[in-house]
Amino acid sequence: MTSTVPRRDTTGSADLGALFAPRGIAVVGASRSPGKLGATLARSLAGFAARGGHLALVNGRDATMHPSVRAAAEAGPVDLAMICVPAPACPEVLAEAAAAGAGAAVVCGGGFAEAGGPGVGYQEKLAAVVAETGIRLLGPNTSGFLAPHAGVTASFVPGVAQVRPGRVAVVAASGGVNHALAFLLTEAGHGVSLAVGLGNGVDVSAPDVLDHLAATLDTDPDTGAVALHVESVADGPRLVAAVRRLAARRPVVALVVGRHDVGAFAASHTGALATSWRTTRAALAQAGAVLVGDERELVDAVGALSVTRARPARAAGVGVVTAQAGPGLLLLDDLRGRGARVPELAAATQEALGGLLPPLTFQRNPVDTGRPGPELGRVFRAVAEDPEVDVVAGYALHEPDAVDLVAAAGEGRVDDVPVVLGLGGTGDEVVRARRALLDAGIAVAGDPRGVAAGVGALLTDARVRARRADPVVPRQVPTGVAGAYDEHAAKGLLDRLGIPTAPRRACASRAEAHAALTALTALGGPVAVKILDAAVLHKTEIGGVHLGIADAAGLDEALDRLDAIGARRYLVERMAPAGVDLVLGARRDPVFGPIVLLGLGGTTAEALADVAIRLAPLGPGEAAEMPAELAGHALLDGWRGGPVLDPDALGRVASALGDLLVANPGLAEIEVNPLRLTAGGLVALDAVVIPREASDAQPDQ
Amino acid sequence: MTSTVPRRDTTGSADLGALFAPRGIAVVGASRSPGKLGATLARSLAGFAARGGHLALVNGRDATMHPSVRAAAEAGPVDLAMICVPAPACPEVLAEAAAAGAGAAVVCGGGFAEAGGPGVGYQEKLAAVVAETGIRLLGPNTSGFLAPHAGVTASFVPGVAQVRPGRVAVVAASGGVNHALAFLLTEAGHGVSLAVGLGNGVDVSAPDVLDHLAATLDTDPDTGAVALHVESVADGPRLVAAVRRLAARRPVVALVVGRHDVGAFAASHTGALATSWRTTRAALAQAGAVLVGDERELVDAVGALSVTRARPARAAGVGVVTAQAGPGLLLLDDLRGRGARVPELAAATQEALGGLLPPLTFQRNPVDTGRPGPELGRVFRAVAEDPEVDVVAGYALHEPDAVDLVAAAGEGRVDDVPVVLGLGGTGDEVVRARRALLDAGIAVAGDPRGVAAGVGALLTDARVRARRADPVVPRQVPTGVAGAYDEHAAKGLLDRLGIPTAPRRACASRAEAHAALTALTALGGPVAVKILDAAVLHKTEIGGVHLGIADAAGLDEALDRLDAIGARRYLVERMAPAGVDLVLGARRDPVFGPIVLLGLGGTTAEALADVAIRLAPLGPGEAAEMPAELAGHALLDGWRGGPVLDPDALGRVASALGDLLVANPGLAEIEVNPLRLTAGGLVALDAVVIPREASDAQPDQ
Repeated sequence: MTSTVPRRDTTGSADLGALFAPRGIAVVGASRSPGKLGATLARSLAGFAARGGHLALVNGRDATMHPSVRAAAEAGPVDLAMICVPAPACPEVLAEAAAAGAGAAVVCGGGFAEAGGPGVGYQEKLAAVVAETGIRLLGPNTSGFLAPHAGVTASFVPGVAQVRPGRVAVVAASGGVNHALAFLLTEAGHGVSLAVGLGNGVDVSAPDVLDHLAATLDTDPDTGAVALHVESVADGPRLVAAVRRLAARRPVVALVVGRHDVGAFAASHTGALATSWRTTRAALAQAGAVLVGDERELVDAVGALSVTRARPARAAGVGVVTAQAGPGLLLLDDLRGRGARVPELAAATQEALGGLLPPLTFQRNPVDTGRPGPELGRVFRAVAEDPEVDVVAGYALHEPDAVDLVAAAGEGRVDDVPVVLGLGGTGDEVVRARRALLDAGIAVAGDPRGVAAGVGALLTDARVRARRADPVVPRQVPTGVAGAYDEHAAKGLLDRLGIPTAPRRACASRAEAHAALTALTALGGPVAVKILDAAVLHKTEIGGVHLGIADAAGLDEALDRLDAIGARRYLVERMAPAGVDLVLGARRDPVFGPIVLLGLGGTTAEALADVAIRLAPLGPGEAAEMPAELAGHALLDGWRGGPVLDPDALGRVASALGDLLVANPGLAEIEVNPLRLTAGGLVALDAVVIPREASDAQPDQ
Repeated sequence: MTSTVPRRDTTGSADLGALFAPRGIAVVGASRSPGKLGATLARSLAGFAARGGHLALVNGRDATMHPSVRAAAEAGPVDLAMICVPAPACPEVLAEAAAAGAGAAVVCGGGFAEAGGPGVGYQEKLAAVVAETGIRLLGPNTSGFLAPHAGVTASFVPGVAQVRPGRVAVVAASGGVNHALAFLLTEAGHGVSLAVGLGNGVDVSAPDVLDHLAATLDTDPDTGAVALHVESVADGPRLVAAVRRLAARRPVVALVVGRHDVGAFAASHTGALATSWRTTRAALAQAGAVLVGDERELVDAVGALSVTRARPARAAGVGVVTAQAGPGLLLLDDLRGRGARVPELAAATQEALGGLLPPLTFQRNPVDTGRPGPELGRVFRAVAEDPEVDVVAGYALHEPDAVDLVAAAGEGRVDDVPVVLGLGGTGDEVVRARRALLDAGIAVAGDPRGVAAGVGALLTDARVRARRADPVVPRQVPTGVAGAYDEHAAKGLLDRLGIPTAPRRACASRAEAHAALTALTALGGPVAVKILDAAVLHKTEIGGVHLGIADAAGLDEALDRLDAIGARRYLVERMAPAGVDLVLGARRDPVFGPIVLLGLGGTTAEALADVAIRLAPLGPGEAAEMPAELAGHALLDGWRGGPVLDPDALGRVASALGDLLVANPGLAEIEVNPLRLTAGGLVALDAVVIPREASDAQPDQ
């Protein structure tokens, strides 16, 4: 639960310097009893003091320590106060720290909003002190942060001293996950530039830290890639903007929790989830982040991207080199599952490989080297030089007698063609070899799945960067949409957006309906006859739709039935040919604002929640990528001789629908259902426009 | 590619003793040049010699070595020959080894069937020597095997000496994967009882090794759990039988390669994939194996199951205890994704926890301890004693100042309630703590995902064992099914199997059709009228189906149209009510024999290949588990007020269809499509019977 106290605009980031690069740190509530938070924290910060930082222990009841932050500040600079006192006392200590000139503070303990009861009040008081004084506050309810380059391991978890300085930044919703990730990164051979757990996030939030990282790039420490862990999102547009800014300069890899029902526990820990897991992932992906499914893949992905990146490419090709066929097959299977392209190598490449490898191995891609020897470096190079190869993925067991893998990988390097190498083995020698590969700019993993995850991240990153070059063309859209729309009027909106509809006529009388029948059947084929009434949202359910009307008798029968359910106006429309039905809609997400959703028609797709989501506005190029994300996308690709979707045509329609929603604050939702894919292209067969309640109708942003 | 030379029946297993527990080993083609296979292998086996095993180096061109296997056998017992000579020379050396009394041999090198060309012939010659002499042969084209308890690291990969003796057995299709798994298990703190890479599998196959493991259980070394890696299956029923035998006594965890298109490379490495990934997984699961998706999950799952198991239970409950809320949320999310039940703890449990934990933490399940202290052991115990909890899952960062996790986990143990614990941290102290937990019978992982994978494996294992208790009731089924069946005859088979169909009449004339109309509409509602012709498989496509016929005029019009497409007989059938359509079929898999398949109707389900598979025969209890495996199973559970499937009713139908196929060698396939779920239960709306080609019609088994 986040506080309701008004927040300062903290889009600027330089003011987190006091927090993450302090000259001096006061530990308030320091203790000499081992096991106490204050004692552990003081011990964790010993490295900071050893590097010449001013570390001041504050405890009014311990004569060997400073009696107050003010006293500590008199002994040396205190930019950061680590507050280790019980929750009720924290607001006062925070105010004292601000008064003593500290620019930032961390409250590690719990017992605030996450605990409910009086804790909510303590948290509100903290927020009030922040608002009054301008001090930056990390927490409460976080295990702190690590800035190993500065020796600041501001955490009560003792093992953090083993987290090395490095190039990966961690921005985690939870202090526990921040630490878990820092340890996993360490195990994988990586170091950390900054690792932050936000806890209750009463002041310093994910966007703040992302902006701080963006502002400190190319300085010391530089950040090569960012791991972002998201539990709930307070301000969707702000998070998206911060990710977009940072992702334009460094890869951001995001893990979003809450795919499944984690209900009450999540609410107790992070506050209510106002938006969906899918929407949050879609928003972050659109902002340029690489999305992953679990914490291991997060480590594989951010680790690889912190070391190397591929050139921008919509569908980069992967060359696979394996010293053992079996692990190579696991790797290939996994890469295929990620949609990676593993193209057959060019004839010239295969010829070169033929000169290097025994004829008994597979050399088309994957390249199976058999037991590797000194030629391995040249094999890597031949594959990397193939015109279809943008990324090299490799796997080998550690066999130093047969080949020096580190040397071979170095020898095989080609500019702009990154390598992700799996090195199977155990023991110190293997750990050293993996570190040497990382130091040489080669991403490394311990198993085929880790290689595939790293390669998958490089491919997504390459695609995101290729997409970024897409021009967005402004579009004229109808404005002033508000109030009730019947189907004819809704389709009129679609017509103005350039979204194809079938020829139709709105009819106020039976005579007009008969005239429409004559005119429309003259175009060929029968018509559909429907009730036309803005108040009726579910026409089919009440018998308001009659299909396949070919003659006057049929029309009269249909009109009789429509009259019987109270129809005053009719829509007569030429029937569209058979095809595959889609559902395309635009609506407002409570956290992220306007979004566009695409799914397949039918209950099966609905039951599977098979839907692609984007924030609006979005360009047609990006919208064109939506169909490929559907699990059932094979249905759109000429399934059983059916029609083939032109993704660009779909992209134009989806982009236009999003633009319409953005341009019309009075519009809550518009849904085209079905949007039919026919041999002749897309046709909107029905459309529903839902106006926003007057009280909600405010412009977005 | 496997050889076509006839094989001995090797279902017995004691005869692999020469291979896996040799008294003496001859390395043929040994070398003193570092980097050569023969040199590396001799070094790997130094430990065997150090333990008093007879290790004999054989090389006719090195005067310091034995000139032949016979000479080596004169110096001491030679049960096993490790053959490190080029492929063309291998058959002769193998024959020599057999003649010298060796009971087993390993050919590590490649250049056999996997390489094509003359290699195919070399492999056939190896098979011939095996058939003539009875020597057991592992390989060719494998990196060997590890039996660390006996000091036999019969592998040319040097790091294998670091693989410790332990309780996990590895049976891998590929030598490379065997080693990769052995190393990953070592990194996870586990040891190995036996680790085998089968390579080309010309003689010793997965069923052989599984049977060997079953025969040596409860001896030294015992095997706690088995990791099975499958690339292709030569003899489906034999593999299934071996897995079933072993899984009845120890957990078998299986990883099947080839989910995605791995085409040409797989064929080159393993031979053609005659069956599907899904069918292979289904067959192994049915035999009692726990299926996993990748090599990491394999290690997590088999590692946990080698240490501990849950009581048999169809839907075991998981109690989650976490010292940090954020990782606990990742764990809960992952467990939910695996379908785990995380029940709210009983009031008494919550009361007990209330006395142990501060009121500000979540205690319903998950149990968030806040920063843990000495009470953690009692928290574990309280959760484990909850009547709904069968497995405890935990996560904590390594904080030895706050709590001794090993002691706490030990204190919290409750008989028959296994614990899987994630311990986050890095460094030697953490490694030691993880090992101590394993030694105490507590499964351990380094991250939430590893915990979830371990728990998931325990739950599946518990479900498999609960299922095993199901009685299978023999069923009377029609026999002698052969030749062509029209729809009426096919439905007659269904009637005899007790599968519900709609009231219908086969009509040889229009007069009979009119009589049928009268009789069937008297039951209420309209009828369907269809062409009745065994030669017509796709009635709808040729206009052979007319629905909703309610009166004589409508019937005449339908009959006119059927006559126009050449109908001589008609089927008049009462229309079934609306509902959800399923597709249920039984057919013959080329590798595994009779199988039953269940899917949802409609193109979306088909495009998603959303299908549940079982081998036939199968009991109704097991068949009843099929619908829950469908991705779209929500449609069968009262979707939008629709009908609710009784899984037992579906189980009876699926089981009966499987029995029919098994009992009728003349039947190639029977498909009920659609099998409609209505408010009144299941109804078979159409059925197709496909006879087997006369030449194929032989009994199964």
